[in-house]
Amino acid sequence: MSEKSIVTLDRLEKFCSEVLIKAGLELSDAAILTESLLCAELRGVSSHGVVRLSTYLNRIAAGVMDINSKMTIEKEFPASALLNANNGFGQIAGAKAMDIAVSKAKTSGASVVAVKNSNHFGVAAYFGLRAVRENMVGLVITNSSPAMTPYNTKTPLLGTNPLAIAIPAGEQKPIVLDMSTSVVARGKIRYASLVGEKIPLGWAVDSDGRPTEDAKAALKGSLEPIGGPKGAGLSLCIDLLCGVLTGTALTGEVINVTDTSGPSKTGHLFIAINVASFINPQFFAQNVDKVITHIKSLPSASGGQVYMPGEIEFNLEAKRLKEGIPLANDVLADLGRLAERYEVSKLI
Amino acid sequence: MSEKSIVTLDRLEKFCSEVLIKAGLELSDAAILTESLLCAELRGVSSHGVVRLSTYLNRIAAGVMDINSKMTIEKEFPASALLNANNGFGQIAGAKAMDIAVSKAKTSGASVVAVKNSNHFGVAAYFGLRAVRENMVGLVITNSSPAMTPYNTKTPLLGTNPLAIAIPAGEQKPIVLDMSTSVVARGKIRYASLVGEKIPLGWAVDSDGRPTEDAKAALKGSLEPIGGPKGAGLSLCIDLLCGVLTGTALTGEVINVTDTSGPSKTGHLFIAINVASFINPQFFAQNVDKVITHIKSLPSASGGQVYMPGEIEFNLEAKRLKEGIPLANDVLADLGRLAERYEVSKLI
Repeated sequence: MSEKSIVTLDRLEKFCSEVLIKAGLELSDAAILTESLLCAELRGVSSHGVVRLSTYLNRIAAGVMDINSKMTIEKEFPASALLNANNGFGQIAGAKAMDIAVSKAKTSGASVVAVKNSNHFGVAAYFGLRAVRENMVGLVITNSSPAMTPYNTKTPLLGTNPLAIAIPAGEQKPIVLDMSTSVVARGKIRYASLVGEKIPLGWAVDSDGRPTEDAKAALKGSLEPIGGPKGAGLSLCIDLLCGVLTGTALTGEVINVTDTSGPSKTGHLFIAINVASFINPQFFAQNVDKVITHIKSLPSASGGQVYMPGEIEFNLEAKRLKEGIPLANDVLADLGRLAERYEVSKLI
Repeated sequence: MSEKSIVTLDRLEKFCSEVLIKAGLELSDAAILTESLLCAELRGVSSHGVVRLSTYLNRIAAGVMDINSKMTIEKEFPASALLNANNGFGQIAGAKAMDIAVSKAKTSGASVVAVKNSNHFGVAAYFGLRAVRENMVGLVITNSSPAMTPYNTKTPLLGTNPLAIAIPAGEQKPIVLDMSTSVVARGKIRYASLVGEKIPLGWAVDSDGRPTEDAKAALKGSLEPIGGPKGAGLSLCIDLLCGVLTGTALTGEVINVTDTSGPSKTGHLFIAINVASFINPQFFAQNVDKVITHIKSLPSASGGQVYMPGEIEFNLEAKRLKEGIPLANDVLADLGRLAERYEVSKLI
């Protein structure tokens, strides 16, 4: 665990934009990607934040991701579209796709927009929040590289395929559920292995598909899905909708973001539901607020505070907007190397 | 556990229709409800099958459910609709809602149809399969009566709010995931309590929100969601989409199907995604088949066979179509009382 330094949001934003523009991204696209990376940092999802910048740029350098790609529309109907990211950034494709979904839902009531031939799209909540800003419910799913086994098998084929659901509220913060279909992230097991700790049963199976408490054996095996066959089934369905329905990848074919042997074969699906097409939006907002205040007023089981999905992240965002973003010094060193490569000013 | 007798599908179908028509349902509506009950029986989900018939008719007798209701359209856009079930059967409202969703998705690419003021709708897969028959992906969610606590609280407010995802295949059976957001059904805990067995940790919490192995304490407490905050968050989102977006109920207000103190305040949401709006349907079907045959060819972890979501249910359906449906004798006795009440021939 390296020490951390605080960087202001403005400084980090300027840095990311400069690097990305020097790397060849158009101004508006660099702004979207930067916004997504900062969204992750502000919300405390540092695994999907600026630490990914060099990973993404490495993919471009290796020729397995295209910085100059333009997204194209392959099929379009009043409430659906299939977009081709043409192997560009997932964040940029995803933001544009959700915006198209929102625009279609404004006239059609709801819409489903899928993206083929894309890449790692960062934090799923980012796209859901774009829908919420327009007073819509946003649903977001993506396929990802193999990490879990189909139920009752030993072969990791399924990704931890996350899903995000964002629901607008009134005075309260929106509900933003952003979850993988695995019990825990692989990072938690990597940490346990590093510090020599056992992991709880239920987190992972070994390479023979047997539940294990041994973190090293777990890293050679697979993550456990939530609810056994339920989480595995959910992940499979997300895979079929994002990989197969878009014509991007069969289950098991997605390539990890750090593997530069070929295009990542990532696909996403975005659903926008226009609240106003179903109910008076003010009435809806008031009722969501009522549910939130009711739940938050309940006695807690732990004795601590009761939080809604996404609330801890919103609180952290408010704090980091004021106080700046803590970055691990090894991440800062990594960003320093990028500064040299792209000839921009270092962060610190 | 009572003994069972075998009843043919035709006989059971005729019996259900006759009772429902005598009870006052129109012919076409009786056919839908009967089809849903038989779908549950064929697929081995007997908890949602003909055992519910007397429960539903009791609600009507008590005046908290309306057998003569006509569903009305409250809001409609090219890819969305809000329907009002006007307190009629959930199965009938749901089937019509999914059919409207399918029809809209044929011209618009995809659609979202919500139903307000409905009732228990039986087995969710039934509606997903209606979409699959039209070569569409069907997503189905519903709210339900309180059984789980919002994360880190002790108060059951959330339903086990199920979701179903049905995806068409080619030569293979469709993928049909039909799952609640709880780890297990309450019925499993009731059984353990009945036979005096302990339940595994992770199934339920007691009335103080503490994990318990005591089935009796669990029955006074709440079911555990899959993946802790993930399943609880998913259930909350389903509640907001089915209850609050439809203007039917705030979280915690749904009344159990056996409680005749008032209307059940159930809402549903149906999403139809037209495969042909995204990809050549033959190509899609072939690729889904490839994924299925690949997964089923993998070595199994248990040594037994590898099944896809819904496959065990399809196998059981094939068997029961040939061999008939086993009904517990106490269910048959219950149906016998209905035969007397509605003056139709007894099943056996």
